Amino acid sequence: MTTSKRKAGFRTPLCDRLGIDIPVFSFSHSLEVTAAVSRAGGYGVFGATHDEPQQLLEHARALKEMCEGRPFGLDLLLPTLAVEKNDRAAAEEAVPQQHKDFVQALREKHKVPAATQGHLFSKHVRSQELFDAQAEAVIASGANMFAMAVGTPAELVARAKAAGQVTLSLIGSPRHVQRSLAAGVDLLVAQGYDAGAHTGTIGTMSLVPQVVAMAGDVPVIAAGGIATGSQFAAALALGAQGAWTGTIWLGSKEHALDPILTDQILRAGSEDTVISRSWSGKTLRMVRSGWSEEWSAPGAPTPLKMPYQQVLVGELNAAVHEHRIESLMWTAAGQSVAYVREVRSVEEIMDGLIEETEQTLGRLAALRRSS
Amino acid sequence: MTTSKRKAGFRTPLCDRLGIDIPVFSFSHSLEVTAAVSRAGGYGVFGATHDEPQQLLEHARALKEMCEGRPFGLDLLLPTLAVEKNDRAAAEEAVPQQHKDFVQALREKHKVPAATQGHLFSKHVRSQELFDAQAEAVIASGANMFAMAVGTPAELVARAKAAGQVTLSLIGSPRHVQRSLAAGVDLLVAQGYDAGAHTGTIGTMSLVPQVVAMAGDVPVIAAGGIATGSQFAAALALGAQGAWTGTIWLGSKEHALDPILTDQILRAGSEDTVISRSWSGKTLRMVRSGWSEEWSAPGAPTPLKMPYQQVLVGELNAAVHEHRIESLMWTAAGQSVAYVREVRSVEEIMDGLIEETEQTLGRLAALRRSS
Repeated sequence: MTTSKRKAGFRTPLCDRLGIDIPVFSFSHSLEVTAAVSRAGGYGVFGATHDEPQQLLEHARALKEMCEGRPFGLDLLLPTLAVEKNDRAAAEEAVPQQHKDFVQALREKHKVPAATQGHLFSKHVRSQELFDAQAEAVIASGANMFAMAVGTPAELVARAKAAGQVTLSLIGSPRHVQRSLAAGVDLLVAQGYDAGAHTGTIGTMSLVPQVVAMAGDVPVIAAGGIATGSQFAAALALGAQGAWTGTIWLGSKEHALDPILTDQILRAGSEDTVISRSWSGKTLRMVRSGWSEEWSAPGAPTPLKMPYQQVLVGELNAAVHEHRIESLMWTAAGQSVAYVREVRSVEEIMDGLIEETEQTLGRLAALRRSS
Repeated sequence: MTTSKRKAGFRTPLCDRLGIDIPVFSFSHSLEVTAAVSRAGGYGVFGATHDEPQQLLEHARALKEMCEGRPFGLDLLLPTLAVEKNDRAAAEEAVPQQHKDFVQALREKHKVPAATQGHLFSKHVRSQELFDAQAEAVIASGANMFAMAVGTPAELVARAKAAGQVTLSLIGSPRHVQRSLAAGVDLLVAQGYDAGAHTGTIGTMSLVPQVVAMAGDVPVIAAGGIATGSQFAAALALGAQGAWTGTIWLGSKEHALDPILTDQILRAGSEDTVISRSWSGKTLRMVRSGWSEEWSAPGAPTPLKMPYQQVLVGELNAAVHEHRIESLMWTAAGQSVAYVREVRSVEEIMDGLIEETEQTLGRLAALRRSS
């Protein structure tokens, strides 16, 4: 394992346990961001839930190369669903006509051509069959960490651990702690309401110490609203041993987001994010956009539950982003989007975060009385 | 000024500026809690927005006595409203019949007798006329601090300062910082979504550093989700110079809440709080109860805007709590209600909070590398 150039002025026990220099975990759908964070001494985690199993294996192979011997993780969404089979035709039949009509009207109103490129959710159904295949691929991938969001199947945790992977469960409520601990995970991410993408209702400040108190010896990583060093230090104060970050990387050079979306990110304040079920069917925080506005307008149908909402909108969403239909393009982001005001490299972002955290810890030390 | 027994193992510049030992500000509708916090070395702030002007002056006189020379504050809700006159009859006429029918049905369903005791919102209207009279009383009261929630009229800030009062503005969004600074307030409270009572949408973790960055030399106090020392230390990490606390005192002996409400508080987790416009007409976080359930049930009317919702429900609410109608009794509380698990004295709560904060600051110091 190579050593990073950077040595942070602080450490938590988690650093030694995972063989990293900086207890910063990045969640990203960008291979480049993931690898750059790992190379910089943090822990890059790639969101692989949009990958077909074969693609997932290829991405892992690429990451292994790009990370230059440093650890990286893969993250999957593994909700408990009523849908067993990856049967696209059956799922499409279950979508109400009213919803299909609304999507067709959206397509016409915004002049969205058909997608020419395939995408997981324009072809598959989030189903147990798909999850099983994706999970097999993660375990076979050689990734150092298997991060599980929404669900934490005990059998999968055991197999991942047997394959030498660190297992991690993302949770948004104290209600989920016991189940994750019982499944045997190595680490918990306590993700607060402030966070981007799938999110619960408990603010990060209110949530983290509750999870820490219940987790016992299992280390907790805080997520939701961590974009500055003062927030990283706050997460450590709350008892977390690391910070799980997503939004902060959306403005990185390496992410190379579409300029239309980069512009949305750089202009958005915390109140410009909204929680919507319009993409996955579950509550997901995104930057307010034509997409979220159309789905919350009077007369819009209530989004369907997972997995049917993605069966409904998967192809349209792929087409919107392929053809760069600005009036419907959107991206997930957390309330810390307000802190992303310029495009910087992953290394610059990491350096800034660490330097601010060091300064904050120094400032806090100065508040203590010498007596 | 007497000196408290307690010396916290940390201090912020705000302590010297305000003549307090511990930068903990309590918000409470209880005189006993307010005075006990001030006597313990913190800064007790009494929520006077439910007081008629004469009553407010009497409460301030009592507090002055009870605080034994230590400073205390009074807090008023001062929203900008369309309603000029404190004209109860006109306001009642503006309430739709559908809403009156719903309240009458609630009254019958839950067998609520008429209130025998008066209450501000069963007699008055939140109106400019009422606010002016309340504000005059605060300025004349001899309270050391005038805390203004929702609105911050510049003219009032100037008069309060001329009367020797510390002025403070509670805000929930970066949008409100500039207006409060322009009004000339001495202190800002950045109150996050996690908080009880009137609350915005930005999580405490995400909000506080934004306000600190905009506030310049004006000290910021953090509110929302602060009930433990780890959370207090986190607030300090976020750049706040103090913690504004409300929920933590609901379980105090001194508050002497109705046992039915104490029971609600001791059993509620963070997810048992809901945001509802059913009391004031503005978004307010409360413990889920029969009251909040009735107002969010299918068929319930959308709550009216301030001040009309309180015109509508003021008398019913007073009657519910006077006659202890358990199925409709409710109390405001924040997501940190999950940390209130037993009834303790204000002094015990304060001691615990300070001790945990000291421990957390010690723990953070140990994370720093000596190199």
